[in-house]
Amino acid sequence: MSKITIAIHGGAGTILKEHMTPELEATYLVGLQAALDSGYKVLESGGTAVEAVKKAVMELEDNPLFNAGKGSVFTNAGSHEMDASIMDGRLLAAGAVGAVKYIRNPIALAENVMLHSGHVFLGGDGALEYAKQQGIALEDDAYFFSQFRYDQWQSIAGQQGYSLDHDLHLQDKKFGTVGAVACDGNGDLAAATSTGGMTNKRFGRMGDTPVIGSGTYANNKTCAISCTGHGEVFLRAVAAYDVSALMEYKGFTLEQAMQEVIMNKLPVMDGDGGMVGVDARGNAVLLFNSAGMYRGVKSSDSTNMTSIYK
Amino acid sequence: MSKITIAIHGGAGTILKEHMTPELEATYLVGLQAALDSGYKVLESGGTAVEAVKKAVMELEDNPLFNAGKGSVFTNAGSHEMDASIMDGRLLAAGAVGAVKYIRNPIALAENVMLHSGHVFLGGDGALEYAKQQGIALEDDAYFFSQFRYDQWQSIAGQQGYSLDHDLHLQDKKFGTVGAVACDGNGDLAAATSTGGMTNKRFGRMGDTPVIGSGTYANNKTCAISCTGHGEVFLRAVAAYDVSALMEYKGFTLEQAMQEVIMNKLPVMDGDGGMVGVDARGNAVLLFNSAGMYRGVKSSDSTNMTSIYK
Repeated sequence: MSKITIAIHGGAGTILKEHMTPELEATYLVGLQAALDSGYKVLESGGTAVEAVKKAVMELEDNPLFNAGKGSVFTNAGSHEMDASIMDGRLLAAGAVGAVKYIRNPIALAENVMLHSGHVFLGGDGALEYAKQQGIALEDDAYFFSQFRYDQWQSIAGQQGYSLDHDLHLQDKKFGTVGAVACDGNGDLAAATSTGGMTNKRFGRMGDTPVIGSGTYANNKTCAISCTGHGEVFLRAVAAYDVSALMEYKGFTLEQAMQEVIMNKLPVMDGDGGMVGVDARGNAVLLFNSAGMYRGVKSSDSTNMTSIYK
Repeated sequence: MSKITIAIHGGAGTILKEHMTPELEATYLVGLQAALDSGYKVLESGGTAVEAVKKAVMELEDNPLFNAGKGSVFTNAGSHEMDASIMDGRLLAAGAVGAVKYIRNPIALAENVMLHSGHVFLGGDGALEYAKQQGIALEDDAYFFSQFRYDQWQSIAGQQGYSLDHDLHLQDKKFGTVGAVACDGNGDLAAATSTGGMTNKRFGRMGDTPVIGSGTYANNKTCAISCTGHGEVFLRAVAAYDVSALMEYKGFTLEQAMQEVIMNKLPVMDGDGGMVGVDARGNAVLLFNSAGMYRGVKSSDSTNMTSIYK
């Protein structure tokens, strides 16, 4: 049996200790640990990497602290439009949904698309119609409401601008996304990513989160990757698959490949953010070029860590 | 001044000579030549690769023979939902739209997204709202109607199935997409792809066409690629960027990289289809693993070719 490992993130950006209270910091760490534990438990009881990343991401989607699922930011229209994707490294199977409303757990819908739709990528109202047919759990607007997100939206609503889960009061530029990667006991890999996107976004804007190859990628031959950052740049950089390609074609380790993408290639394109990755031996790397990234990793080699800052 | 080159495709699949009439064959070749000429003319008069691929794709979108723009297939709901993307190899700028309705030239909207939206990827009704604000040309349902596409839809409508621009009568499985790649006089590269997707598609299904890295990719360091084929597989394979990665990381030529992806990697995943590519020296490659691909290439080395079958 391989080393089993799960790594997660809850977004990256200008997350600075001086803008946090000890209480808020502790709440984030508790949320990360809960997600880590729930995914790790799946792996420990013999579950697959796909099941583990889905479980961990659902836990983060259900936590209002993170910009995904329940905690999704407000769009320009005052609604919540979410993106998610999942990939199974065994057969390169994948599922993704973009700009979907009313879905309690977008990652569960993405997994259903992967398993049952015959497609990979569904969007908008069509994806919602599919979700209804499949009996996916829906929620009304009240479920997604929080005063914090509403105030965040109101502080920039009416402007043409948008915000990357940006807290203007705290000058805290955060790329609100959640994600997980895992290596299970068979050495199988999977990755999952979910987000509410940018506060005040319009026009059905999607970032890298629903895009296989950019926000999410998994391949047993190389690695599983989940990204968080300025989605437009991660899209143009095909960031997640680029890590895999550097490993497969240049013989880089996961660490080397992630260093190349996050520390060299993305900064040239003004691509702030980070990613979590795991290789087929269960080695995890958590890397970001911004001030902080909500993150955690737990492994059968007794690693168990959650962290926020550099 | 570099060799200037443009290459185009109008879809790939089970396109067999025995299912064609000489008249229809001639009409396809005329359409391909017209698109090739219009794009080449841009390059010849000193225009950019981006302008050239946009012009060629618009010509194909305006031609009812091809499944993009005016000739887009019917969805399950009897509407037309189109996808398109464009990428500029100079700065890795990109624009994409998914599941958009009523847009006369989706590739023009994708270019506008690249240039003016501050985003990369817009979808659905939101993308239409953006198009209206930008004064992008719209058309009503009548513009997109053709008896041929309607009959094609009716022949499978009511079934749960969908069709990859599949003509049941001719047993002609075609992946209806159009695309272009170009190298201009400065050695700058660009790629553009546009489609109406699958006949009878539902649920806001998108394939690889609107996805940067899968259906479209351009990078002056390596190549410009536009794909056509079974979109779900091209998405999972991150097909367009994979060609670029093989060139950049393994030192493959464009020909070697496309051979690896189209002839080795995609067939293992049941990925029927093909792609057109051009490198920064203006060398073009047109390759497919299906029975045929509508295609053409024109270059300042006096190449001028249109073709359908193997």
